[in-house]
Amino acid sequence: MQIDILTLFPPMFTGPFDYSIVKRAVDKKILDLRITDLREFATDKYKSVDDKPYGGGAGMIMRIDIIDRALAGRTGKVILLDAGGEKFTQKKAIQFSKEKSLIIICGHYEGVDHRVHEHLADEIISVGDYVLSGGEIPAMILVDSITRLLPGALGNEKSLDEESHNSEDVEYPQYTRPEEYNGWKVPEVLLSGDHAKIKKWRSL
Amino acid sequence: MQIDILTLFPPMFTGPFDYSIVKRAVDKKILDLRITDLREFATDKYKSVDDKPYGGGAGMIMRIDIIDRALAGRTGKVILLDAGGEKFTQKKAIQFSKEKSLIIICGHYEGVDHRVHEHLADEIISVGDYVLSGGEIPAMILVDSITRLLPGALGNEKSLDEESHNSEDVEYPQYTRPEEYNGWKVPEVLLSGDHAKIKKWRSL
Repeated sequence: MQIDILTLFPPMFTGPFDYSIVKRAVDKKILDLRITDLREFATDKYKSVDDKPYGGGAGMIMRIDIIDRALAGRTGKVILLDAGGEKFTQKKAIQFSKEKSLIIICGHYEGVDHRVHEHLADEIISVGDYVLSGGEIPAMILVDSITRLLPGALGNEKSLDEESHNSEDVEYPQYTRPEEYNGWKVPEVLLSGDHAKIKKWRSL
Repeated sequence: MQIDILTLFPPMFTGPFDYSIVKRAVDKKILDLRITDLREFATDKYKSVDDKPYGGGAGMIMRIDIIDRALAGRTGKVILLDAGGEKFTQKKAIQFSKEKSLIIICGHYEGVDHRVHEHLADEIISVGDYVLSGGEIPAMILVDSITRLLPGALGNEKSLDEESHNSEDVEYPQYTRPEEYNGWKVPEVLLSGDHAKIKKWRSL
């Protein structure tokens, strides 16, 4: 799978993608992850990418011509990350993980020209009901959740089955050593070795 | 305000916090941001921080003794990031931004010993209904959204008022130059200069 991220802040992705699942998927060539600086598509000497809103208002709006030029020659589903978009869920992650190619546009918090919503984006997505500075951290959310679903990304296929079961379906409390800490004990049933009882307790 | 992040992957935070609002807030000493490696609190030579779940199951569970030692000597509201937690919203961000100190525990996706939920965490928070590898990206969400709300973080107080209005309340479509692109035009009313009309259009 290929994921292109279009952003004004490429260095923000340095740490998050250099560890864990995403790094491993890139190393194993399961994921072809590209970060593109939108500023490369500016045409004036100031490298400007945004401008004041028509009709007045505070803040700067990201320009459609910059984004359109950045999209030229790329193929795949175009996702605009915007606080007003459809809510991202695990169902969406599964759906996106089946795409051959995704292009994620990181909106600036002050806004993106609405013609990008109308004419360039296939889907407009929000990761939650809170105000962020831009689409960069939401893009990390999408990449992490989608990568986990790619076959082979979590390790061998056995652990994919086990782990995805574990991470998506486990809603019961989990405990590990020490058996007692600070007077707080692990529930006795979990130490009983009685698998039928444990299964029942976990399903309560 | 002080925010302590307890994590198994400190380098993940390199990029996201080195840019924009968070970096500026740290530079201006509005935010005292600390990243602590949970592995420092391991006591064996393997630096182990997790173990198998009691009662069976796949995956490794983060140990309570490691987290408890990491919390020792720290004061502030303890937030555990966990997929099963209460949904993070802008209202929560505002509430958290009024705290003097927050301690954010980044859970590992396979789970955290449930006694951390029961005895050590003041609040258990989830940023959305999707499966992630850990609490690190959710911690970035909390820090970004909370930092934006700290007085002075967005620049001078004037722009704080304007921008927070702009980012939180703007639900109308925004447009900027070029006035026409690829045949797609900015709505005429926005070019009219008639502020009453523009206000009305934006409220529709």
